[in-house]
Amino acid sequence: MATQDAFSDRHHVVVVGAGFGGLEAVHRLAGAPVRITIVDRRNHHLFQPLLYQVATASLATSEIAWPIRHLLRKRPEITTLLASVNDIDPEARRVILDDGSTLAYDSLIVATGARHAYFGHDDWEPFAPGLKTLEDATTIRRRILLAFEKAERETDALKQAALLTFVIIGAGPTGVELAGTIAELAGSTLPEDFRNIDTRRARVVLIEAAPRVLGGFAPDLSAYAHRALEGLGVEIFLGQPVSQCTAEGVVYGDTTLAAATIIWAAGVQASPAAGWLDAPADRAGRVKVEPDLTVPGRPEIFVIGDTASVAAPDGSPVPGIAPAAKQQGQYVAKAIRLRLRGERGLPAFRYKHAGSLATIGKRLAVIDFGLFKLRGALAWWLWGLAHIYFLIGVRNRVSVALSWLWVHTRDQRSSRLITQGRENEGLPKPR
Amino acid sequence: MATQDAFSDRHHVVVVGAGFGGLEAVHRLAGAPVRITIVDRRNHHLFQPLLYQVATASLATSEIAWPIRHLLRKRPEITTLLASVNDIDPEARRVILDDGSTLAYDSLIVATGARHAYFGHDDWEPFAPGLKTLEDATTIRRRILLAFEKAERETDALKQAALLTFVIIGAGPTGVELAGTIAELAGSTLPEDFRNIDTRRARVVLIEAAPRVLGGFAPDLSAYAHRALEGLGVEIFLGQPVSQCTAEGVVYGDTTLAAATIIWAAGVQASPAAGWLDAPADRAGRVKVEPDLTVPGRPEIFVIGDTASVAAPDGSPVPGIAPAAKQQGQYVAKAIRLRLRGERGLPAFRYKHAGSLATIGKRLAVIDFGLFKLRGALAWWLWGLAHIYFLIGVRNRVSVALSWLWVHTRDQRSSRLITQGRENEGLPKPR
Repeated sequence: MATQDAFSDRHHVVVVGAGFGGLEAVHRLAGAPVRITIVDRRNHHLFQPLLYQVATASLATSEIAWPIRHLLRKRPEITTLLASVNDIDPEARRVILDDGSTLAYDSLIVATGARHAYFGHDDWEPFAPGLKTLEDATTIRRRILLAFEKAERETDALKQAALLTFVIIGAGPTGVELAGTIAELAGSTLPEDFRNIDTRRARVVLIEAAPRVLGGFAPDLSAYAHRALEGLGVEIFLGQPVSQCTAEGVVYGDTTLAAATIIWAAGVQASPAAGWLDAPADRAGRVKVEPDLTVPGRPEIFVIGDTASVAAPDGSPVPGIAPAAKQQGQYVAKAIRLRLRGERGLPAFRYKHAGSLATIGKRLAVIDFGLFKLRGALAWWLWGLAHIYFLIGVRNRVSVALSWLWVHTRDQRSSRLITQGRENEGLPKPR
Repeated sequence: MATQDAFSDRHHVVVVGAGFGGLEAVHRLAGAPVRITIVDRRNHHLFQPLLYQVATASLATSEIAWPIRHLLRKRPEITTLLASVNDIDPEARRVILDDGSTLAYDSLIVATGARHAYFGHDDWEPFAPGLKTLEDATTIRRRILLAFEKAERETDALKQAALLTFVIIGAGPTGVELAGTIAELAGSTLPEDFRNIDTRRARVVLIEAAPRVLGGFAPDLSAYAHRALEGLGVEIFLGQPVSQCTAEGVVYGDTTLAAATIIWAAGVQASPAAGWLDAPADRAGRVKVEPDLTVPGRPEIFVIGDTASVAAPDGSPVPGIAPAAKQQGQYVAKAIRLRLRGERGLPAFRYKHAGSLATIGKRLAVIDFGLFKLRGALAWWLWGLAHIYFLIGVRNRVSVALSWLWVHTRDQRSSRLITQGRENEGLPKPR
């Protein structure tokens, strides 16, 4: 416990959201004459780029999540609150929390992220869960593993085929990574374990409305990823938007496909921050911020990360990825420091795209650095090293490296647990 | 996938429950002329002796659980089924599963374990969860961590005190281990992380109806454990049965104690196997088996582990611990082998008590070998080495050793995650 009294007369920065953007802003404000309150509705920071590995049983939840207040324990000027934000009152400069209490701020950083979105089809969510939280990941893991378990017990051939059909909707990096890993799970990890089914016959189907996979990458990398996925046995259907998701399966184009497991990786919607701020938003709900990432007419409020709509120097939108959120967090911390010194504002935020990465299964990856491109095994090694580097703490780096070693050398996945069953999933609720 | 046809004319052993007893029986039947079906309602075998460490954020769920079918993958004569048993028909020699399908057996091994029991006060369960499954552990972990989070936000002093009061009911090994670890969590791991509360002021209260802690151990070890717990700041109340558990706290003896977190470690009830088998049972619901662990009048049905009521050579009941279940599994495998060879039955099962172990916090333990006793740091090392040895697989041994290294050298606990919130817990459901 560190008493807060020493900092009570300092400029108060409230940060809502402890994702990559919010945490980066907090880190970059170290030593500045401020006190900080960081609010998140989860007690942990989540390393989202590896969430698909929790969903596919390769990593444990605790390997990619850290208690926020523990990360910030050495900074006595920071208070961490586990709370939801209900609203923001920009006139009174207050954040209104779930219990009705309020937090007064001098500067506010809104970094509340995004959720997966169903483009007006929210009724699809029960059948096609998305992947944004640890609970999403354990839900998807449970469904994938349960499908194999039910198939092992199923005697009706058609029902068994549906249980062994896994559909991923959306072929961005998350969809590609999920499809590749599920194909490997079925093809390499599980075959020995079952007696009545041949898991290698499982179908992994990747459906994308756009004309190619990894639309954000260069076309030759897309083509490479396409071939690599097909090499793993993934069936890819492009240019075919999904028109229906039910408990029985999906409809895309003219095709009806019976599938017990559907995963949504097709789109996101920003948090409701634009509504709280009464600020202009784009179609995905992201706040249209000024070039300095502030809300129009509210220079003391910054919006960053997946909640902000910003243009890159070439006019394209800044992508919703961790490096972009971090650059914005860094920019905002600098802006606050300058203002506190009474200096004039920073030049407009300029996004620097370092590169796009995606893995395809456990040995291949594509990296698009813009100027040059990398693919194959070397790209995979770079991807793996980069992700281990960006994990927080020696403990988690060693632990993830160890888990990967087992996946790669022995095809064993350490987290094949079916837990937290709630819905009626055709098997008894474990108790 | 290994085809089962090669084994279809073999003697069929059905094992219900993949705990320590069931798995041991299966392991000891390796090479015997049988085919085996093992049924469990969970997909994983759980290393229950370390479950309290998941509940107190020291270990991850996947570090102490393994997919059953993966453990048995190298044995083509074994089929693993994820299913609940609804009933058993001893006349027809069939096990009836949740979906109405049946499994015919030649020999049946019932090893379905026990649940925590409230002695006629099942209404206490929502307020005082017990610890038997991974979900129980993550529920308790969530409640402990949430109590500190809520206390950090609470301004009312009385409510804050209740949030910082942790009550453990029952001072057997599980209760002692939970109390010691929560005291360390509050005293060593968390203090730096909070700003408004001093977690070292948290009260950890251990309540026991019997006159001493660790009643199954020698009195001098009980006394040692008592002092060691008090050294960690645990308050111990003996000879005082709890008469009430509510959302506000507990009543024991004449005392009413306001507490937000209550954990039940006071008693267990066997699975409903006695009802399925229409067999005589003791007060805890355990089947009163013959000296050869069979059900009276049903020599082809064995009941073992926490579901069986057996007397040790000295007339005392065989304790509900892993080594006892394993010895019974081993005995039953031998009995089946002998019968298949047409030989006469084994002499009666004789339990050999190897010793009782309990840890108190992270550096002390007591071990009661009967003939000699051990306590303190050396006992702790033995305890730790024994538990790592009994974990399954190199991966988990390394991982648990690593987690313990961090706990012991840095007071960091790697799994401080608040997940799967369902009930109205006074904080928003994370979404």
